[in-house]
Amino acid sequence: MSRLPTIATLGSHSALQILKGARDEGLPNLVVAAAGRDALYRRYPFIDQVRSIPRYADFEALEGELSEAGCVMVPHGSFVAYLGEEVNQRMRVGYYGNRGVLRWEADRALQRQWLEQAEIRMPREFKSPDAVDDWPVLIKTDGAAGGSGYFLARTPGALERRLRQLDGLGYTIQHYVVGVTLYVHYFQSLVHDRLEILSMDRRYETNVDGLGRLPHQVQQEIDPQPSYVVVGNSPLVLRESMLEEAYRMGERVVETSKALIGGAGIWGPFCLETIITPDLRFHVIEISCRIVAGTNIFVDGSPYAALFFDEPMSTGRRIAREIKEAHALGRLGELIDEGPGA
Amino acid sequence: MSRLPTIATLGSHSALQILKGARDEGLPNLVVAAAGRDALYRRYPFIDQVRSIPRYADFEALEGELSEAGCVMVPHGSFVAYLGEEVNQRMRVGYYGNRGVLRWEADRALQRQWLEQAEIRMPREFKSPDAVDDWPVLIKTDGAAGGSGYFLARTPGALERRLRQLDGLGYTIQHYVVGVTLYVHYFQSLVHDRLEILSMDRRYETNVDGLGRLPHQVQQEIDPQPSYVVVGNSPLVLRESMLEEAYRMGERVVETSKALIGGAGIWGPFCLETIITPDLRFHVIEISCRIVAGTNIFVDGSPYAALFFDEPMSTGRRIAREIKEAHALGRLGELIDEGPGA
Amino acid sequence: MSRLPTIATLGSHSALQILKGARDEGLPNLVVAAAGRDALYRRYPFIDQVRSIPRYADFEALEGELSEAGCVMVPHGSFVAYLGEEVNQRMRVGYYGNRGVLRWEADRALQRQWLEQAEIRMPREFKSPDAVDDWPVLIKTDGAAGGSGYFLARTPGALERRLRQLDGLGYTIQHYVVGVTLYVHYFQSLVHDRLEILSMDRRYETNVDGLGRLPHQVQQEIDPQPSYVVVGNSPLVLRESMLEEAYRMGERVVETSKALIGGAGIWGPFCLETIITPDLRFHVIEISCRIVAGTNIFVDGSPYAALFFDEPMSTGRRIAREIKEAHALGRLGELIDEGPGA
Repeated sequence: MSRLPTIATLGSHSALQILKGARDEGLPNLVVAAAGRDALYRRYPFIDQVRSIPRYADFEALEGELSEAGCVMVPHGSFVAYLGEEVNQRMRVGYYGNRGVLRWEADRALQRQWLEQAEIRMPREFKSPDAVDDWPVLIKTDGAAGGSGYFLARTPGALERRLRQLDGLGYTIQHYVVGVTLYVHYFQSLVHDRLEILSMDRRYETNVDGLGRLPHQVQQEIDPQPSYVVVGNSPLVLRESMLEEAYRMGERVVETSKALIGGAGIWGPFCLETIITPDLRFHVIEISCRIVAGTNIFVDGSPYAALFFDEPMSTGRRIAREIKEAHALGRLGELIDEGPGA
Repeated sequence: MSRLPTIATLGSHSALQILKGARDEGLPNLVVAAAGRDALYRRYPFIDQVRSIPRYADFEALEGELSEAGCVMVPHGSFVAYLGEEVNQRMRVGYYGNRGVLRWEADRALQRQWLEQAEIRMPREFKSPDAVDDWPVLIKTDGAAGGSGYFLARTPGALERRLRQLDGLGYTIQHYVVGVTLYVHYFQSLVHDRLEILSMDRRYETNVDGLGRLPHQVQQEIDPQPSYVVVGNSPLVLRESMLEEAYRMGERVVETSKALIGGAGIWGPFCLETIITPDLRFHVIEISCRIVAGTNIFVDGSPYAALFFDEPMSTGRRIAREIKEAHALGRLGELIDEGPGA
Repeated sequence: MSRLPTIATLGSHSALQILKGARDEGLPNLVVAAAGRDALYRRYPFIDQVRSIPRYADFEALEGELSEAGCVMVPHGSFVAYLGEEVNQRMRVGYYGNRGVLRWEADRALQRQWLEQAEIRMPREFKSPDAVDDWPVLIKTDGAAGGSGYFLARTPGALERRLRQLDGLGYTIQHYVVGVTLYVHYFQSLVHDRLEILSMDRRYETNVDGLGRLPHQVQQEIDPQPSYVVVGNSPLVLRESMLEEAYRMGERVVETSKALIGGAGIWGPFCLETIITPDLRFHVIEISCRIVAGTNIFVDGSPYAALFFDEPMSTGRRIAREIKEAHALGRLGELIDEGPGA
């Protein structure tokens, strides 16, 4: 049998979890980090190799070596931010996941098409500022990640002012749904042909998660501009009577992806970012088509993963297990996209 | 020795945790689910049997079969909501817990009597709208569960309007205590004759847990009606200097229940739902006399349970362990109410 | 080899965690509790000895016995509150940690000097009420612990009124930074010569963490005075791209402590209490130079500790492990301050 794959990823986002998951499954691991970002990974003995490159732009020069070493790249939320969509598409290293998904995730209009076709409820989107008839609204600038580039507008005047400041940058305008946020961490297993819910989290965002602690008069006086920069995460479980609906939303997303993207559609980890309203409805504001940072809470296990596995199973470890099982079954080719011309 | 009991429950609320606890303790498990609710439980290999019935009204027809199969029903928060108090009282299947508690839990006036006799501090209750002299108040409609049917009123006019809308439905009016909520998960063990605190949680309620993220001017403009629908839970630990008081409140509740309800009073899991004020006082707003959904966070263990047990011990597993130990000691009859005429 | 040390502490704060950590590492444990505080510790079989004293003022009389028994006192956040700084300094029992740190922690001005020298960003401090030019501000009275004695002031008038009420009690005035709080739990290991981040938490404070659930009009009417009394904690993870900076802040704190305090500076557990602003900056509001109560969430392990250890590793257990390892290496003297004249 061919050698065990080495689990590799970029040094950021959820790398610690991905690499630890590999170690826990007995797979070698390797992290590629841009100069200055490597120090963190050198602190941890469970990481086998830290390959430092001057900048992420130098990643492509490393691909041959990574490929030779039998590396499988496990992508996370920073892959496109650091390398760009193109480099991800043409990466000549085994890539865990369906690269066809990248285009559908990067473009908000395509995301919406996918989710709507999957019969997933989303907040109303307004085609133009004049079309807004339900306030407040959230302006999401193109490429916004981790909450930066999200702005709340509550009047036509505020909306107009904010859009002028964007200076030509693309954006979408969504109705702001009042409810509570909940992020569902799915894992679509090709080996077991099933969808698993592994965990759930709530994003910790500054400054909006600090505003509630300010008495109203203080808020009135300092008038803080709300911002949604994600700096952390905390654990959640969902009311059990809503869990089957969460599963079915995930299954519809997977099924629809087969039609839209082709092949096996989306596999591996993905996340539906939801707001739940008092009528017990999910409103999906976004889909992330890879492991999300909220899974970092669960390196040492989660209540949902414990329903499937006897050992603590983070999403990072789940990926490694799937890869290991596929390898043992001679099915690794189904999970790994070897890249153009492979 | 007689065969091991099969742990059975209804498919909702905390069923996954209860059934997983049974599996972890080596006991067979079984879930009864109404059509449409069974799909969730079929996703999990650790569940031995899924018995689907057309509607919960058909549960009683199943009782003979469950009894023959040596099932012990482990009740949870949805048992009364789905089957009604009567069916619970007359259920002819081994029932884990003191059925005498049902009446005291269902009636808010009896709950209050119980807690006050146990010297538990509760928010002031107002006998009528005219008696309200401390605002705001929370109107709780009879039968309200999971936060639905809770309304905040801050002026006499608002209170009057809301009560008119209730259209004859019974209600209580409580002073709304400003503080932070904390739910304590107790387990009264008959086998070990001790009270254990197994975990604690914070309920995640929509939309009130989303209001703080709205800047005050947005709130002023959209004027959202606050709602308290429970959609999830998150973990908490309590300041250690308050832990003994939490234990004593629980012990007084148990002691008082022996006098009021008879026999061994309340045993197994129960929960005191509290608000803590800056003077470090607990204000108990409600008692739940069975496993609560907040324990679902701890399927893979909790910091408090770890102080008693070497393996991860959820409340669901704790119930199964108690049943297994009682069975081994020939004491199962103390825990299980076999039902009328048994 | 000399006998294994007995891990001892005072009955409060994080004692359960410290004592459980000792038990998990195979070390004997012992808790000293003032009358009335001992009951909690008698509930737990894993605690070997509960030594009850009438009042904490009687602690010193016990020191000879504790020393004879080979006890190592593991201090926590209540040690100075219960015994006073002097008793801690002159304690004639093996004391885990550098007693030289006590002075630097107790005095806010020295704390600030230490952190500023370590190039840690802190909120602006105002030397006098007249100097305040950035609102709101937080008044912290000297000796305030656990959030009591913290007051928010948003106008010069409110500030002046509040300061008059302090009646001569010392205080500092800090700019109130709007952001989200995050507490980082460090462990400086002398045995492994490395800094570990073991966990992170968010404090649960009454009533400020309950204010956000009040609709703004209710807040306007009842005008609740914000208070910051800590009653609990919940788990957090930090955005991975900020983790290295968290490590470096901790390392600078340790390095600077060597210069300021002498010897090995600070070792064992400590905590930086931070607020994170939308520009992804840490603002450190305080340093705690021992185990903090937020670590109590992680008795059964944490996602960060799992990156270093294969078994669940709370801070309490980490302390016991360090002590055990040092003892086995004949290095216990480096960790334990035997006290004056030892």
